[in-house]
Amino acid sequence: MPQLGLLHRRAWAAFLGQLRRPPRPVCIRTVHSHSQVAEAVLTSQLKPRQEKSNFIIKTPKGTRDLSPQQMVVREKILDMVVSCFKRHGAKGLDTPAFELKEMLTEKYGEDSGLIYDLKDQGGELLSLRYDLTVPFARYLAMNKLRKMKRYHVGKVWRRESPTIVQGRYREFCQCDFDIAGQFDPMIPDAECLKIICEILSGLQLGDFLIKVNDRRILDGLFAVCGVPESKFHGICSSIDKLDKISWKDVRHEMVAKKGLAPEVADQIGDYVQCHGGVSLVEQMLQDPRLSQNKQALEGLGDLKLLFEYLTLFGIAEKISFDLSLARGLDYYTGVIYEAVLLQTPAQAEEEPLNVGSVAAGGRYDGLVGMFDPSGHKVPCVGLSIGVERIFSIVEQRMKAFGEKIRTTETQVFVATPQKNFLQERLKLIAELWDAGIKAELLYKNNPKLLTQLHYCENMGIPLVVIIGEQELMEGVITLRTVASREEVAIKRENLVAEIQKRLSES
Amino acid sequence: MPQLGLLHRRAWAAFLGQLRRPPRPVCIRTVHSHSQVAEAVLTSQLKPRQEKSNFIIKTPKGTRDLSPQQMVVREKILDMVVSCFKRHGAKGLDTPAFELKEMLTEKYGEDSGLIYDLKDQGGELLSLRYDLTVPFARYLAMNKLRKMKRYHVGKVWRRESPTIVQGRYREFCQCDFDIAGQFDPMIPDAECLKIICEILSGLQLGDFLIKVNDRRILDGLFAVCGVPESKFHGICSSIDKLDKISWKDVRHEMVAKKGLAPEVADQIGDYVQCHGGVSLVEQMLQDPRLSQNKQALEGLGDLKLLFEYLTLFGIAEKISFDLSLARGLDYYTGVIYEAVLLQTPAQAEEEPLNVGSVAAGGRYDGLVGMFDPSGHKVPCVGLSIGVERIFSIVEQRMKAFGEKIRTTETQVFVATPQKNFLQERLKLIAELWDAGIKAELLYKNNPKLLTQLHYCENMGIPLVVIIGEQELMEGVITLRTVASREEVAIKRENLVAEIQKRLSES
Repeated sequence: MPQLGLLHRRAWAAFLGQLRRPPRPVCIRTVHSHSQVAEAVLTSQLKPRQEKSNFIIKTPKGTRDLSPQQMVVREKILDMVVSCFKRHGAKGLDTPAFELKEMLTEKYGEDSGLIYDLKDQGGELLSLRYDLTVPFARYLAMNKLRKMKRYHVGKVWRRESPTIVQGRYREFCQCDFDIAGQFDPMIPDAECLKIICEILSGLQLGDFLIKVNDRRILDGLFAVCGVPESKFHGICSSIDKLDKISWKDVRHEMVAKKGLAPEVADQIGDYVQCHGGVSLVEQMLQDPRLSQNKQALEGLGDLKLLFEYLTLFGIAEKISFDLSLARGLDYYTGVIYEAVLLQTPAQAEEEPLNVGSVAAGGRYDGLVGMFDPSGHKVPCVGLSIGVERIFSIVEQRMKAFGEKIRTTETQVFVATPQKNFLQERLKLIAELWDAGIKAELLYKNNPKLLTQLHYCENMGIPLVVIIGEQELMEGVITLRTVASREEVAIKRENLVAEIQKRLSES
Repeated sequence: MPQLGLLHRRAWAAFLGQLRRPPRPVCIRTVHSHSQVAEAVLTSQLKPRQEKSNFIIKTPKGTRDLSPQQMVVREKILDMVVSCFKRHGAKGLDTPAFELKEMLTEKYGEDSGLIYDLKDQGGELLSLRYDLTVPFARYLAMNKLRKMKRYHVGKVWRRESPTIVQGRYREFCQCDFDIAGQFDPMIPDAECLKIICEILSGLQLGDFLIKVNDRRILDGLFAVCGVPESKFHGICSSIDKLDKISWKDVRHEMVAKKGLAPEVADQIGDYVQCHGGVSLVEQMLQDPRLSQNKQALEGLGDLKLLFEYLTLFGIAEKISFDLSLARGLDYYTGVIYEAVLLQTPAQAEEEPLNVGSVAAGGRYDGLVGMFDPSGHKVPCVGLSIGVERIFSIVEQRMKAFGEKIRTTETQVFVATPQKNFLQERLKLIAELWDAGIKAELLYKNNPKLLTQLHYCENMGIPLVVIIGEQELMEGVITLRTVASREEVAIKRENLVAEIQKRLSES
């Protein structure tokens, strides 16, 4: 994918580039009268923002404020993700933060205990949403929509024991793309995998792999190995742990805790330790036992078709058919997938970070029907980008580089070296604002020039407009470039045009 | 403000323009082989999306889903508002949806009953945030920040009796800008008023006025008229109703319900019916009774200075000193303001809409100190844009025009007139996506060409790429312009470049 998301990729690289830029060179050439002061301005240092305290003033357990620095990173990442969703024709949708409690019941299996309920203050019983998928299904059923391609970025809430070091919070952002509707097999499913590839490539997080499996293959596999149907679910969640614990431990859990016969466990073991490309799908289709099972056969047939489409999309080499992938949620009915980073990028400054999966999803053909009184089914397939984990990776990377990032977008600062120039500064800055230029000044009647220039260096503001008695007399304005400390006089009436010219060049 | 926010204004005008565009002319000129089919495509009609039903499937009382149409309008409006906040140097901030319950107590006076509490599921007692101001003050105190200029866009929740017809919901979006810090008087306050003007002008909602008053003037006025201090608050909320009910009714409430002496009420009446420009401030400064009161004198002095700055900003004529403006919230301590639309724009198609205030704010110098254990004060001034009301106005306007708006941004549709061309379509669309082009296709093995072209007209997709046997043989692609129905053959290898050229021209 040499040209993938070219524009966004460039913007992102520029953003990352900003972090890696060496400290600004201190160039002391100046060509104007304020030079003595200007040379005294030192390159600023970032002060620690958050001091620990033992006060009762805090955010609720498992939640946090997002600082301006964090907001900048989030905005960039979310912009990239959303622009990819829009590239694939998705519409935006928003749903309330809370739903009727009954809408969320029987959707999340044993995780239902993690749902936040609202206090009964009279009226309806309400719960905070636990994900964006169930509200989407409720929206489709409620509006009797038979198809829709939508994205949704929003907060969800889960009362988990917060292990904040891993980037897990009780309030976190989800970023979902889903395709609802009855279509020919595997076309929307393949597009979902393409989207994950585009986003993870675009974000330049390092090499990644998408594990793919199908719930029908797992069910078929359990059946042919002789797992009683009542145990399917429990065995499925044991299997799901294979990316964290060894086969030996998983086997022990299945036999000792879930009462599976050891020989059945061993047969499962032979299968779930397999992973590979389309050739593994072919191999399983030839498997004398699996091919006898209708469900497994359907799943394998669909996976074969999926790989064909993924090859046409040029992403087959990123996909691994992995029989151990099970996915936690109850509502999946077909293809499931999960993207993992293969390693953090090899950069000496970075500490290794265990990030787990960074995107996941699958097909859920029964969920909408659960909301529809006539039980009408709307097949769905979708994906969720693990943006919180991605935020953590990028924030950690930034910390490793120890570089400051701009939290404002101010382009021009309006300064004066003289006392009693507030009126002129206010007139001038209003002119800039009215021309759409991002501008700031200090809220002081008589600030020191040093303080003003220091502020610009601190905040990374590229241009300073200086007005003093001399300028007023001559009908000019001094325009200072902060990086080079170069200053030029510009006719007052040309100021806005000159600034716009410089900003469009940079 | 002739050049105000030029770029954004243009974009906005283009958006509004889209709504007012006459129906697409049905041009039937075609220059290629698919013309027979193309001519059969009819201009599409918008189907009603939402059907009423009596099901239990619903969103909680006072809340609603936001449809793709509504999301588009919101995104445009919020983009304009946020870009103005950034133009004034604000940083982004986010806080959790819920706070410790105790953080919200004693902040909202009699409105505290409207706070949503979470159920006690073990652990902390939590409440959904009621506004963005209190969390901001909590953030400043918690992080011991002495100054900050921030904006925050987020949902807040209030258990009000929903009168949905007026656009009031229990879940709604707030859009705040605040300046915290000890600065020279009235400079940040004037900037807040400038921001309101820029945003309301930029949104082209029609003529507006910003009423300004000062809590200290109100307090001084009550004192000199002989209102007992214990009644200040009650009288203040009666005064606050003057924009909805007549002076006669307000007077009755003050005398009959709040036990004010009739002659005191009449004295208040003489004052609160006054409004005007800076000359009224001068007049009040000369008022023999008000000028005896220290508080009123301070407030009037500050208003005089404020008007001086507003004149320099070129917005003084938009501001009205209005002694009846009181504002509901407890925490204001100085200047207060509220922007109202003077009328809906005079357009025959539109029904008049009572929208009330569309922006408001003021100075609150004591709130941060309430969170600080040592009581350290951080003076603050800020504003909130009434985006929900603005959304309602724009949505109503759109409804009046009866015109469809695009809910996707898709630029190119990949179509085929032949059967068994899915593989070619998938290869082609991946090429477009990888080049950053927004593209869609139908998820069908063998869709009809008519269906495909109909989809493009329906969705407002400007370009169609058509691949069939003829094209495959000749190594070309047919590029069709949906509006003109013109078709040209383009070499396959030039396709991406040609599309990018056309998109950059349009």
